[in-house]
Amino acid sequence: MDRIKYSPYLDIVQTPEKAALNIKNKHVVGVSGFTKAGDSKTVLPIVAKRALHEDLKITVLSGASLGYDTDADLAKNGALYKRMPFQADPTLRKAINNHEVLYVDQHLGQTADMLQNIDTFKIDIAIIEAVGITKEGYIIPTTSVGNSPIFAEKADKIIIEVNRSFPESLAGLHDVKILKKQPNREVIPVLDAYTRIGDPYIKIDPKKVVAIVYTEVPDSPAVISAPDEKTKAISNHILRFLEQEVEEGRLTESLLPLQAGIGKTANAILSGFKDSKFKNLTMYSEVLQDSTFELIDAGKLLFASASSITVTESCSNKVFGNFDQYKDKLILRPQNISNAAEVISRLGVIGINTAIEFDIYGNVNSTHITGTKMMNGIGGSGDFARNGYLSIFACPSISKEGRISHIVPMVSHTDHTEHDVDILVTEQGLADIRGLAPIERALLIIQNCVHPDYKEQLLDYFTEAYKLGGHTPHILNKALSWHTLLQSNGTMKIEELEVHQA
Amino acid sequence: MDRIKYSPYLDIVQTPEKAALNIKNKHVVGVSGFTKAGDSKTVLPIVAKRALHEDLKITVLSGASLGYDTDADLAKNGALYKRMPFQADPTLRKAINNHEVLYVDQHLGQTADMLQNIDTFKIDIAIIEAVGITKEGYIIPTTSVGNSPIFAEKADKIIIEVNRSFPESLAGLHDVKILKKQPNREVIPVLDAYTRIGDPYIKIDPKKVVAIVYTEVPDSPAVISAPDEKTKAISNHILRFLEQEVEEGRLTESLLPLQAGIGKTANAILSGFKDSKFKNLTMYSEVLQDSTFELIDAGKLLFASASSITVTESCSNKVFGNFDQYKDKLILRPQNISNAAEVISRLGVIGINTAIEFDIYGNVNSTHITGTKMMNGIGGSGDFARNGYLSIFACPSISKEGRISHIVPMVSHTDHTEHDVDILVTEQGLADIRGLAPIERALLIIQNCVHPDYKEQLLDYFTEAYKLGGHTPHILNKALSWHTLLQSNGTMKIEELEVHQA
Repeated sequence: MDRIKYSPYLDIVQTPEKAALNIKNKHVVGVSGFTKAGDSKTVLPIVAKRALHEDLKITVLSGASLGYDTDADLAKNGALYKRMPFQADPTLRKAINNHEVLYVDQHLGQTADMLQNIDTFKIDIAIIEAVGITKEGYIIPTTSVGNSPIFAEKADKIIIEVNRSFPESLAGLHDVKILKKQPNREVIPVLDAYTRIGDPYIKIDPKKVVAIVYTEVPDSPAVISAPDEKTKAISNHILRFLEQEVEEGRLTESLLPLQAGIGKTANAILSGFKDSKFKNLTMYSEVLQDSTFELIDAGKLLFASASSITVTESCSNKVFGNFDQYKDKLILRPQNISNAAEVISRLGVIGINTAIEFDIYGNVNSTHITGTKMMNGIGGSGDFARNGYLSIFACPSISKEGRISHIVPMVSHTDHTEHDVDILVTEQGLADIRGLAPIERALLIIQNCVHPDYKEQLLDYFTEAYKLGGHTPHILNKALSWHTLLQSNGTMKIEELEVHQA
Repeated sequence: MDRIKYSPYLDIVQTPEKAALNIKNKHVVGVSGFTKAGDSKTVLPIVAKRALHEDLKITVLSGASLGYDTDADLAKNGALYKRMPFQADPTLRKAINNHEVLYVDQHLGQTADMLQNIDTFKIDIAIIEAVGITKEGYIIPTTSVGNSPIFAEKADKIIIEVNRSFPESLAGLHDVKILKKQPNREVIPVLDAYTRIGDPYIKIDPKKVVAIVYTEVPDSPAVISAPDEKTKAISNHILRFLEQEVEEGRLTESLLPLQAGIGKTANAILSGFKDSKFKNLTMYSEVLQDSTFELIDAGKLLFASASSITVTESCSNKVFGNFDQYKDKLILRPQNISNAAEVISRLGVIGINTAIEFDIYGNVNSTHITGTKMMNGIGGSGDFARNGYLSIFACPSISKEGRISHIVPMVSHTDHTEHDVDILVTEQGLADIRGLAPIERALLIIQNCVHPDYKEQLLDYFTEAYKLGGHTPHILNKALSWHTLLQSNGTMKIEELEVHQA
């Protein structure tokens, strides 16, 4: 019981089943958890099960995606009315696209502000994972901070899941501050990745805590495929570009703080820095993946600030089994500070994120398959792309044996506009579109990023559109034709169709 | 000569014709001027004329749009290779859309950073209008600050146009600071509209000044139509919405600092505050139009911070003829501070901007007619919409005798994504889409904002799309059909076509 230093809480230690009874139909529930890290591992899954047998439909706000099958079970059992600000679960995704669950896809840096500004999501109850409780009754988070501070502040009631699978030495990792609502919003005095501005715990009113449960369930491990030829090529293009920026005196060898999105491509890109000339790197990011710890081990990365640590099982054993080796190189912050426009613009973060597709003018789709079906969500990519020093978007040039080109005439959904994108990169090459007019961008993107199988087809589109005039040439009734072709014929290739039809 | 307090400059006073000879073919020229205010009124127009007779093609960077026919003449005479970050001239617009001039349409808050980060636009010469020169040789700007400080810092040479048509009492109006390049970027300590953080002049190296010219030409006056029924209705919807926010305790009677875009609609919206219940208002904006001074006169507005003052002739006479009455209520800042993400998010600015069109999911097009033809540019709308407390976009529901609906199934160009838009408003009504999923937004927007003539047609589109499923329902081969219909038949109305074809 020594993880709970505030004795009144000992009286309300209970089973997760009992604690879960606090969640009632139509409740708005704020849960800890950011890309699988530090989420509710016992109470929320029980709520999902209860929905099988009773009338229970809730709104769930989190930091980002949850671990295990929690989102899947909530969706499958009809327990979700609305979900925000992010998810990455195949079952939930299907429910969203079938209109069974309402989903609000939000910049991860903006949920806390929204909760301060509107009353639509009055948090009835917060469920927050803790590695321990201070003597004042405050929460020491586990592997993510996410939106937990604002959920705890806004909630009527709080349930704490004390997770004994993490070492108690996580205490001190976190830096928590709740920003005041405007017009009293203060300067966020983060001057570099290292700066601490708050407390190592989430201050709460202990009287709001209605239940404490214990758990030993570890975080749901990340599963990341090893870098392959394509992701290595993408990484190399980015490294060569950054090397050139250093050679020409625009950046130093320690660059500026790096941010990398979640997943295989971003992880592979970051891994590539291990064998680069860069040194004394820092990260100001939202999620730390395996590559962060590879870079620390390689002596390349001095410090990493983020909102969560989401790693594979082996990396988790390495990091949390020897946490004293890593602790002084890490800070976890609330996601409205890790993703704050103010800090990202001041530090000049280099944002590296993945795209579903981009178009010849530099608009990026990060969220929708063929313009309609939600994949995961925008996450923090917009927070970093909009306000950072450099906004890099990467994806493979083709997929599905070449039936899909990820560079298209016009994106089917826009998450990052032409005004906010600096660098586009595929395994084919990199296009630096800073300071270019649309027609300049189109030629560079087609030349550098597009797969040879689609180069002529895309150039044909651009040439035909160019003749019609306009700052951003398009043939409106063909602009989305690659997507409709894919829907109807299973490929974006015009040529194959023509051969087939001939 | 008493406007020039630094005597070495007196030796280089010369005719604008001679000064203009410093501008040579292929030069990159940074000129003062922001939405017609404080622009180069003698030297740059002479450069435009020279291009008629000699090989002279330059890149022109400004704060925003220039006054008189300067942009028109530069374009008409083939003097422009590239133009950025904003323009609003019909002749230049045509040249851009005909691919005669390359145009980079940029967030107005980001040009200064771009100049610090890349070398593509190494400024050969800066032309900056001044109301006077300090004894150190520093520039006191006139009616705009814009990008002048960064142009002066980056330029090899500087030409100063001393404009004696403005009262010398403009000195003290400005607050100038050049931010350091990352990683040395400092906190921008602006805590409210009133805060001064810099100098009342642009510090320059006097050795870079190659010419001084005098002018008496006033700013090109703004021409703003009076509010009409539609713009009054839009203004009323916004006022009623804000009143409700106050009633429900989310805002106070002094709201939060207001920003309003340029033009008739934004001016009319702001004018509406005169007869409202709000009091002790402030503005943290980029341009101050007539309405700002109406609100000051009415005792409603305590203070306004911006980057320029762009007013009609009569308003100009009132303000600059009695400048002591207004001076202590105004600050003009560089546009990377008036439009800084850091300050806009800290202050919680309420951004009110106009749209060309928006779609049923809340994406906004601010720049392109039927997706291809540039109108003016994004200006600062993205700086405020992305990072403010509230992002409001307004436009009439229809135009051209109802042949165009400004609410469409899918915008033909995206400048502000669904993630960044809070409130949409037409003369029909207002939709508050905060916290709503796409299908909820669609129903609300169709119900509240769409003109009765298009309501059924838009609902038909949504209903058909909804059946196909997807988080953001669309029928891809019909998504842009309203625009192609307009192109081919001169109207977006399907019904009229059917009648016609029957």
